[in-house]
Amino acid sequence: MIDYTGTYTDQYQLSMALAYYKKGKAQEPAVFDYFFRKNPFNGGYTIFSGLQPLLDTLENFRFDKTDLAFLSKQGFPDDFLHYLKNFRFKGNIHSVSEGEVVFPVMPVLQVEASLIEAQLIETLLLNQLNFQSLISTKASRMRQMAGDKKLVDFGLRRAQGPGGYYASRAAIIGGFNATSNVRAGRDFNIPVSGTMAHSFIQSYDNELTAFRDFADIHPNNCILLVDTYDSLKSGIPNTIKVAKEMESKGHKVKGIRLDSGDLAYLSKKAKQQLDEAGLDYVKIAASNQLDEYVIKSLMEQDAPIDLFGVGTSLVIGKPDAALDGVYKLSSADGKPRIKLSETTEKTTLPSRKQVFRLIDNDGNFTGADAIALHDETNPDIMYHPFDKNKSMETGDCKKEKLMNQVTKDGKRLIKPQTLSEISDYRKTRESMLPGEYKRFTNPHEYKTGISTKLRNLRNHLIEAHKNPTS
Amino acid sequence: MIDYTGTYTDQYQLSMALAYYKKGKAQEPAVFDYFFRKNPFNGGYTIFSGLQPLLDTLENFRFDKTDLAFLSKQGFPDDFLHYLKNFRFKGNIHSVSEGEVVFPVMPVLQVEASLIEAQLIETLLLNQLNFQSLISTKASRMRQMAGDKKLVDFGLRRAQGPGGYYASRAAIIGGFNATSNVRAGRDFNIPVSGTMAHSFIQSYDNELTAFRDFADIHPNNCILLVDTYDSLKSGIPNTIKVAKEMESKGHKVKGIRLDSGDLAYLSKKAKQQLDEAGLDYVKIAASNQLDEYVIKSLMEQDAPIDLFGVGTSLVIGKPDAALDGVYKLSSADGKPRIKLSETTEKTTLPSRKQVFRLIDNDGNFTGADAIALHDETNPDIMYHPFDKNKSMETGDCKKEKLMNQVTKDGKRLIKPQTLSEISDYRKTRESMLPGEYKRFTNPHEYKTGISTKLRNLRNHLIEAHKNPTS
Repeated sequence: MIDYTGTYTDQYQLSMALAYYKKGKAQEPAVFDYFFRKNPFNGGYTIFSGLQPLLDTLENFRFDKTDLAFLSKQGFPDDFLHYLKNFRFKGNIHSVSEGEVVFPVMPVLQVEASLIEAQLIETLLLNQLNFQSLISTKASRMRQMAGDKKLVDFGLRRAQGPGGYYASRAAIIGGFNATSNVRAGRDFNIPVSGTMAHSFIQSYDNELTAFRDFADIHPNNCILLVDTYDSLKSGIPNTIKVAKEMESKGHKVKGIRLDSGDLAYLSKKAKQQLDEAGLDYVKIAASNQLDEYVIKSLMEQDAPIDLFGVGTSLVIGKPDAALDGVYKLSSADGKPRIKLSETTEKTTLPSRKQVFRLIDNDGNFTGADAIALHDETNPDIMYHPFDKNKSMETGDCKKEKLMNQVTKDGKRLIKPQTLSEISDYRKTRESMLPGEYKRFTNPHEYKTGISTKLRNLRNHLIEAHKNPTS
Repeated sequence: MIDYTGTYTDQYQLSMALAYYKKGKAQEPAVFDYFFRKNPFNGGYTIFSGLQPLLDTLENFRFDKTDLAFLSKQGFPDDFLHYLKNFRFKGNIHSVSEGEVVFPVMPVLQVEASLIEAQLIETLLLNQLNFQSLISTKASRMRQMAGDKKLVDFGLRRAQGPGGYYASRAAIIGGFNATSNVRAGRDFNIPVSGTMAHSFIQSYDNELTAFRDFADIHPNNCILLVDTYDSLKSGIPNTIKVAKEMESKGHKVKGIRLDSGDLAYLSKKAKQQLDEAGLDYVKIAASNQLDEYVIKSLMEQDAPIDLFGVGTSLVIGKPDAALDGVYKLSSADGKPRIKLSETTEKTTLPSRKQVFRLIDNDGNFTGADAIALHDETNPDIMYHPFDKNKSMETGDCKKEKLMNQVTKDGKRLIKPQTLSEISDYRKTRESMLPGEYKRFTNPHEYKTGISTKLRNLRNHLIEAHKNPTS
């Protein structure tokens, strides 16, 4: 769908790449970490999403003729343009699995490549992972509240332009069942779903004729929108008439959709009217500015709603609308690197790393991840990453390595997964996360600590920058 | 960049289209209105944006082979697929100009086409106009605060995936000067701009060498990022060294960039250090979580910042992140149509319409727009659209028609404009809008009224639905 070429990047990546190229630094080995600093939605966890689209894109990431002509006009020299013309990403990527439950500070993905390659893919990587993880997390919060009710993404019209394409994919990973977005359905093999709009009914002189015509054309998939004029006085009585007519032809109206008013009240009244007419098989769909809090409230009120259609708040990840993920250099030219900061929490973690998730005897997450150097096998103490007085022993509980190599020399090592597989993985992992980390109000903070070796390395680098010998 | 095919739509558009097609309604004439109900950001106005990308897309909107194969698998019948295969948008569009200052309730754009065509483009139209108008409005608010300082879009990494592509275009319409987004620069002819990242400096053993190398490669466009280790103690002293070395070679450091800490304090201290070193020509750029409020505060503190680099909050239109624009049927089969609602404010305005902007003797907007039927020439009274007791005379002040025909039978009537032309138009129109509508806190509400004829028509339709004769 999207033609990602080499210029899908920030200008400064190219300015830096030129300097690396001209100064003989382009091929120095480098490691960059992708991580974020804060869970979105004031929540207690984040769902990692966007890995496969990223890998697909990286395999095809090229500077095309138009790119090169534009960059030439910008003054980039010919030898560098020749380099870009042959540019291919050939790095190694280590990553947690798509659909994994992740937390702030921990490296979620690491890129090990030549300095110039790792730099040139930064913007593309952040642009994809930040957004898709945001939306999968939002969807997961709605799934938590919706129990086993159907959740359908209706958001394309309010999406941030073509961002909606990936939002629909990310929603499935987070636990949605279907989308109205036909293009996403086509390309990502997502079930597509849709009802009717007010305009359909308005285009007829009366609602009943509109319903009849729609039912006639869609006898097996007829969901009638009932609020164009008045849900209880017009939409549902007309639904009942049409349902009876369909029964006489051997068909059943599948459902109604409520799209305004008090959805708890209206769904109960609608259910009552339908049941009294002997139509207890007619499902009730609800839409109109839904989010996880409205769904929670409707569920708590036992609103007899079978399907929630969620638009804006899902596909833009309201209210945060962005995940603050960053991509920081942790090793260059074979040496570990850090970035200091006025804010201690922004000091980075050097070197290639592994994340160990501590698992308790029941097979659940204990509430702590240990970040270690990549070749450590069993970090036994973890320290608070920013508060030197806090530490905990990791004891003898099971430790799961979260990061696995997903590309080698630019070639993909993992085979493509279906969205159902990724969503199932997300579901399993979420079920291992204790409830206190999942609640909406003041969720418990998942602990992320660093190993002794990583701490010592970082402290050493901080000291070296404070007291430079050169 | 984006391959918009016919399946870039919601499933229900296709379900409805099939019913129109099968029931002989497909070619009935229809009019749909695009409008929104609330200015974003609690502001007093909105900048209309996205018209040209929409027209470009509509000209090429086709169901391709993959689309048709997918829809066939979904069960759509062959005759309908044959219709879709030949689908072209052949409608007439009337619209306000791109870059226009617009307000809630008023029709911003109207599509006059066959019912099926108008329905099939709905999702695409909303997806583009809602998002781009949101971002142009956000950019305009930042431009208001930034005076004649440079504003540069740095947002691609935090954008909602490929939404960032259009965000960069919309930012220019709203008053930005440049973007870091190279692909948007390439395709939309936007000046591209960029400095360097922390990773560049970290990849060297010390900051000074990194600065020297960068300056050597970019002698005429050297903006140095100074906060990797310590802005005042390291970054600026090293900048001064490099600037002196460059002076000796006949070059000048262009600027520094501050990216953390208190930007007001740091910019003043930085300016002082630079001035004392005789480097008063070095510009100061600032970034890090900027929005219109931070820019306002920095300007009020007389922070000596020459360039603001704005990321997340611009490209996602934080905090709203969506404009609530809708697309409602106002005429079908030659008859005016309305949608009633439990909420009075959601009752729509029937028929094709024109919007008259009232201009005062000084050439400024008076604060009132009159919505009339499309063939009215001089509505002399306007009524509050929802409160029947409120009305005002439009008097003899000048009335400007805001909507013009932009496509006829699917062919574009207006010639493409450059982004500078659109931005200049936006600037002129904004300057005609009195300050009280532009302020951030409790902006004055721009009045939108309806003409006597439109009011009578709507009241008639409401009555007809309440007391159906059939």
